[in-house]
Amino acid sequence: MTGPAPGGSRKAMLDAARELFAAHGFDQVTIRDIAARAGISPALVMKLGVSKRELFLLTATIAPPPLPEVPLERLGAALVDELVARLQRGEIEHLGRAHMLRMTAPDPTEVRARFLGGYVEPLVRVIEGPQARLRAELVVAALSGLATTLRLFELPTAIASPDGVRAEYGRAVQLLLDGRPG
Amino acid sequence: MTGPAPGGSRKAMLDAARELFAAHGFDQVTIRDIAARAGISPALVMKLGVSKRELFLLTATIAPPPLPEVPLERLGAALVDELVARLQRGEIEHLGRAHMLRMTAPDPTEVRARFLGGYVEPLVRVIEGPQARLRAELVVAALSGLATTLRLFELPTAIASPDGVRAEYGRAVQLLLDGRPG
Repeated sequence: MTGPAPGGSRKAMLDAARELFAAHGFDQVTIRDIAARAGISPALVMKLGVSKRELFLLTATIAPPPLPEVPLERLGAALVDELVARLQRGEIEHLGRAHMLRMTAPDPTEVRARFLGGYVEPLVRVIEGPQARLRAELVVAALSGLATTLRLFELPTAIASPDGVRAEYGRAVQLLLDGRPG
Repeated sequence: MTGPAPGGSRKAMLDAARELFAAHGFDQVTIRDIAARAGISPALVMKLGVSKRELFLLTATIAPPPLPEVPLERLGAALVDELVARLQRGEIEHLGRAHMLRMTAPDPTEVRARFLGGYVEPLVRVIEGPQARLRAELVVAALSGLATTLRLFELPTAIASPDGVRAEYGRAVQLLLDGRPG
């Protein structure tokens, strides 16, 4: 039998997964559904070496939550609070997922544009003073580091001390939000 | 022909790549060498959907550079300086590579132990005051975020303003190193 090249099958599988997950969510979609929509056999999906969960992570859309509605001087603590709370609830952390998505995306330029638009731009609109855009980017970098490093390396002391993380890291993020005096 | 299961082939390929890259480096090793050592065909390596570069990233070891030799009160700026300089030289950034390695590692527990031992422990030994271990973990999280987010999302203002990154982010990292007064 002459099938599509492995690269073509992989793209078809990812396109199908992206559409089905966006329409029906993770639980309602099976590998068999994805294979059927992609026009390939479930065995080939298995052979391509990705699980349903990996397919979901590969194709999930970037969906930043709205900024917490607090005064600017409390935003650093609020952003860290929310991030820690999401990780404690075992939710998929949006920033960490965005990094995973970018790393493996078939369309990295689009993912980058959505990331900058979704995470950096809302912060630029609330930050004051010089270099607001630079500082917004650095706040996103700092929050991304907390999200990915806590999840990937299960930092033992940080996981045991969520209040300490909120206090120390919240203060550092606030410093980036505020910028240097003068 | 009865070959090994796809999962088995993948493991054999990664084991072979890890050994060969560690012994001979990236440039001296071919996909054909890896396949031969793994006892699989080069065509199957292609079918498993990974490039030589991806194999390298998947199997590269965690190798943290030594801490910069500066007084503790200048360590935040020095750590950010070094990170920005490595990215500007186009070097593989160690922290970013460690995250990639952990995300895809066949041996995540070992990677985590090496990450904590290589990045967190040296900082614990130089940080002073209460919660030194927590703050060391958070410094690593902040530096990881800068490394991965700059590389993956090419933050436009940060890339255009390395001096601004050094000043603003260096100050935030220093705050984590110093801890809260009192």
